[in-house]
Amino acid sequence: MQFIPRPGTPVTDIDTPSLVLELDHLEHNIEVMHSFFQNRPQKVRSVTKSHKSPDIANLQWTQDGAVPYGITCAKISEAEVMVAGGAKQVRMIEQVVGSPKIERLMSLAKRAEVLALVDHPENIKALSEAAQAFNVKLGILAEIEIGINRCGVQPGQEALDLVNIINKSKNLEFKGLSAHEGSLFIADFEQRSIVAKERVQKILDTRELLEQNDIPVEICGAGSTSCWNIVGTMDGITEIDPGSYALYEAQYTRLIPDNGFIPALRVLTTVISKPTTDRLVTDVGFKSCSIDKGLPEVDWPSGLKVNRLNSEHGVIDIIGSEGKQLRLGDKIMLTPQYQGTTVVAHERYIGIRNNKVEAIFPILARGAHY
Amino acid sequence: MQFIPRPGTPVTDIDTPSLVLELDHLEHNIEVMHSFFQNRPQKVRSVTKSHKSPDIANLQWTQDGAVPYGITCAKISEAEVMVAGGAKQVRMIEQVVGSPKIERLMSLAKRAEVLALVDHPENIKALSEAAQAFNVKLGILAEIEIGINRCGVQPGQEALDLVNIINKSKNLEFKGLSAHEGSLFIADFEQRSIVAKERVQKILDTRELLEQNDIPVEICGAGSTSCWNIVGTMDGITEIDPGSYALYEAQYTRLIPDNGFIPALRVLTTVISKPTTDRLVTDVGFKSCSIDKGLPEVDWPSGLKVNRLNSEHGVIDIIGSEGKQLRLGDKIMLTPQYQGTTVVAHERYIGIRNNKVEAIFPILARGAHY
Repeated sequence: MQFIPRPGTPVTDIDTPSLVLELDHLEHNIEVMHSFFQNRPQKVRSVTKSHKSPDIANLQWTQDGAVPYGITCAKISEAEVMVAGGAKQVRMIEQVVGSPKIERLMSLAKRAEVLALVDHPENIKALSEAAQAFNVKLGILAEIEIGINRCGVQPGQEALDLVNIINKSKNLEFKGLSAHEGSLFIADFEQRSIVAKERVQKILDTRELLEQNDIPVEICGAGSTSCWNIVGTMDGITEIDPGSYALYEAQYTRLIPDNGFIPALRVLTTVISKPTTDRLVTDVGFKSCSIDKGLPEVDWPSGLKVNRLNSEHGVIDIIGSEGKQLRLGDKIMLTPQYQGTTVVAHERYIGIRNNKVEAIFPILARGAHY
Repeated sequence: MQFIPRPGTPVTDIDTPSLVLELDHLEHNIEVMHSFFQNRPQKVRSVTKSHKSPDIANLQWTQDGAVPYGITCAKISEAEVMVAGGAKQVRMIEQVVGSPKIERLMSLAKRAEVLALVDHPENIKALSEAAQAFNVKLGILAEIEIGINRCGVQPGQEALDLVNIINKSKNLEFKGLSAHEGSLFIADFEQRSIVAKERVQKILDTRELLEQNDIPVEICGAGSTSCWNIVGTMDGITEIDPGSYALYEAQYTRLIPDNGFIPALRVLTTVISKPTTDRLVTDVGFKSCSIDKGLPEVDWPSGLKVNRLNSEHGVIDIIGSEGKQLRLGDKIMLTPQYQGTTVVAHERYIGIRNNKVEAIFPILARGAHY
């Protein structure tokens, strides 16, 4: 029900709280990531789970360094939105379990190339039976656990055993391996490289073991936004699946300043109360700007610092002269620490350039938890 | 895009992650709150900002102890949804600032009795001008700051000065005072009473000052879910505005166990991976079950404990024999610590009774941050 601003509207006339996207920064981030992979064997298959936007996915999968029209999705409902938006190659990074979702996966596999992710024989059996029933051939990746203690089989023999089961299953085609080394918030590049390479080496060793057993491995995927230019240069890795780089966010610039990207995501808010000379209250709370990874930073004006967010209010300390001049109705632009839960609080991005509205990107996969 | 279960569906057949509402508990909570006020001068004007549901609001404002068809809203977009759902008396608990929102408030005041909340002369001037332009008479409450350092004028003379400005403003009718004493998570009832009463006394003293100045005070509102039965018994308070009591939540039962309500909110999730004998991974992350106030608790089965939530995954430790028997596809029911950000992650509540689906409540004010 938010007022949708017309293109050309000055940013200070946008109703609040609003999710604002600096288009210059977004384009810079996509350029940095994809140009790096233009002349490399590794390609980028971006994760869409954080931005939830086919508009942004379209900017990613049409780049030279990308798997053409390829994306990575966490949820089947998210993948459905992206295929509707033009995706042709969908790699899942979460196991699809249970009949309702497996049936939707089969339906999707009739319209796009789908790579399902498995780590358990029961799931392989269910996928094979469904693929036969729906008469589709399904690409399968085995998830390898390489250090974050979440899903995945152990590297080595356990992985080989699982792949052997995949290869014996009707209508499933083993395509390769997938792993997630985690968000490595290690400021020093060399230290970050050591940890990332040590983890990712486990998937490469497993690749070697499979090949020694005459099992071809077409896809070998790992590599997040925190170590894109580390994992993305490792021989044997065929594609990386970073997600956060497009919007980027304050926690990254704080924790790994050398990463090459610029935060593009903002939350615009309005001063609704100035009860004392050192305190402003605005209409942004943690329902519209998440605090999962910390308090947002103030992008402009200067002289302000976020003191706390309540569910519907932001309390902002006045610490400098520009802050003192703010009046009721004035706007403040915040940079969130974390995009994942901030994005899904909103129905749309308001894309701005030179402080004017240029584009509206609906967040079509908002709420796609399924 | 989630599968919407038909009434009668067993809870274990609901697709996940889903927001589930135990209707027996919801009705218990509403009964406890409202029966307490049936024969008291104080009435309940429930806050809708956490549940966002006209279905639940309808269960509240039709009770004997309620302000009839009366609600309290944080945001104008939320109030619009509630008026569409049948609300007749809307009390705002956030200042409405800036022309786009003030105009919507005037529009709303043509369809329902609206009480706007003010703490600044500039806002009073803007509301008065708009009320004249739209030819509406607008009820006004002055917000008094009583101890949470957010919005509001100071009690006493500062409040009197503000009320004098309201009373001189065309098309505005001063109706009374509003304050928020905060969520008082103090386990001991006596200690909680001392703090609540000390804070709320400031608004009552201000009421007295206004009446000494021949200014009638029709409404005097305070009192949240944490101190409903404390503030709700204070002479001079006319209405309380609790919100969390209807759904309730784990953080309350943990922090103030004597409060009388039962958590009604749940998040249902599915086991998607069991990589080791002591770890399950499910399809719930903090995008579908917020961790703003801590990790969710496991409602059933027994033998499990939430280890952590990532954005799209839940990692659950197996700590007992029932947990060991879980297989891929099995369901786990969680109780979130906090309703505010968990509710708005979803499009609907799935109301259950005796473990079967009974009602679907769309979360129509989801995303109503404006």
